[in-house]
Amino acid sequence: MAKNMTLLWHSGSAPCWRVLIALEEKNLRGYNQQRLSIYKMQHRSQEVLEINPRGQLPAFKHGNLILNESYAACFYLESQFRKQGNKLMPDCPAELAMMYQRMFEGITLYHKIRCLIYYPRKNPEDEQENNAVRIMEKALREEVNLWEGYLKKVMKMNTFGYEDQFVLTLTSALQEPKPFLTGQTFSLSDVTVYPAMALLFYAGLPLERYPKLGEYYTHLKGWPSIKTTWPQNWLKNPEGHHLLKHI
Amino acid sequence: MAKNMTLLWHSGSAPCWRVLIALEEKNLRGYNQQRLSIYKMQHRSQEVLEINPRGQLPAFKHGNLILNESYAACFYLESQFRKQGNKLMPDCPAELAMMYQRMFEGITLYHKIRCLIYYPRKNPEDEQENNAVRIMEKALREEVNLWEGYLKKVMKMNTFGYEDQFVLTLTSALQEPKPFLTGQTFSLSDVTVYPAMALLFYAGLPLERYPKLGEYYTHLKGWPSIKTTWPQNWLKNPEGHHLLKHI
Repeated sequence: MAKNMTLLWHSGSAPCWRVLIALEEKNLRGYNQQRLSIYKMQHRSQEVLEINPRGQLPAFKHGNLILNESYAACFYLESQFRKQGNKLMPDCPAELAMMYQRMFEGITLYHKIRCLIYYPRKNPEDEQENNAVRIMEKALREEVNLWEGYLKKVMKMNTFGYEDQFVLTLTSALQEPKPFLTGQTFSLSDVTVYPAMALLFYAGLPLERYPKLGEYYTHLKGWPSIKTTWPQNWLKNPEGHHLLKHI
Repeated sequence: MAKNMTLLWHSGSAPCWRVLIALEEKNLRGYNQQRLSIYKMQHRSQEVLEINPRGQLPAFKHGNLILNESYAACFYLESQFRKQGNKLMPDCPAELAMMYQRMFEGITLYHKIRCLIYYPRKNPEDEQENNAVRIMEKALREEVNLWEGYLKKVMKMNTFGYEDQFVLTLTSALQEPKPFLTGQTFSLSDVTVYPAMALLFYAGLPLERYPKLGEYYTHLKGWPSIKTTWPQNWLKNPEGHHLLKHI
């Protein structure tokens, strides 16, 4: 029981979702938690500001230690509960390097998604510049294609193994291909990047246009920590919206 | 000697500087390196693209492992050379939590600086919106004030110790206050956030307006890994520019 932890969160926010997944992976349950609504401006409440002076969600603390940045919370939870629940950082230096690299590229991916999704909200229709949307769409399309390429490469590696590791090749060839971001195991890169990937599809990215991303998205939809924490409001409205249908 | 490492970098770029500092801290020297110029578009060269498909600097690899994201490279170097050079991740959970938290807040700080600094470059004078600049200035001012507060708090802690740790209080009171971001020791948070802080002052942030930030900036200017890697072009033109003088 993680009674000395408090998480204030918003459903459907990728940063909040990351923390929910990490807690689940580390078998940390029974923490104090409250689902707030940013639409009701609850992220600016005194309760949130006391933990997160930025007035943002998630607001997370363990005892007196504050970890509001979702990546910080994920790293911290893994470091402090290393032997509890699932191990989220691979020992293999090659996998670890890729885990770090994809995690931080994931920040760019999420930033580009947000720019496009929030543009209509921040700019009333008569003030929107068509050109601005086109530029952001182009940037996101290039970004998504990069990730499609990464997944293609990593899934090939997972199925056929590394060329110079014959035994691994044979073993892996007999296994189902495992679409994780950095190799054979679910890691912090999946914890942090999956919520952004899921947002892509929720916001209308055509699954058939990006088959490897689609495979990754669909496969991990059933992953226990992800399934358990799937945004409630997305379940109610599984069609999502269509802001990214042109990507 | 780190002959199996390659770093392509640009002088004055905060992300590149982070990697230079981390390498220095871990006593990794003699790596293959090349200083390129983004003004000459060398970040789009084949040489860079082979390591970094985004065509950005830094482009960094260790053997065949790619770590272009500066935070990824710093984390990786610390994890793989834990016992070499200086230890950059504190054992104390409270310091570690703060290290993570500040590192990721540092991404927001750097983003807000970049938005403002690059605005005039990206928007010719006749297309600039006065309001846009004011909004960005306000956002950066609030951000910088947050950090001034963080440093005030941590410097007080360093001088007087934690209230419930009397021995530490006495010991610390006899020592010089150490302005590190997360406590008693130089850590990955300093490696990653200091370059953004230095950019603030290089771009005209008035030192006297933010005394704690100023103290942090000035103190760490002489820190060996930072002094050694100080941007050459900043040395040539120590006055910098004045884009942030109103912050």
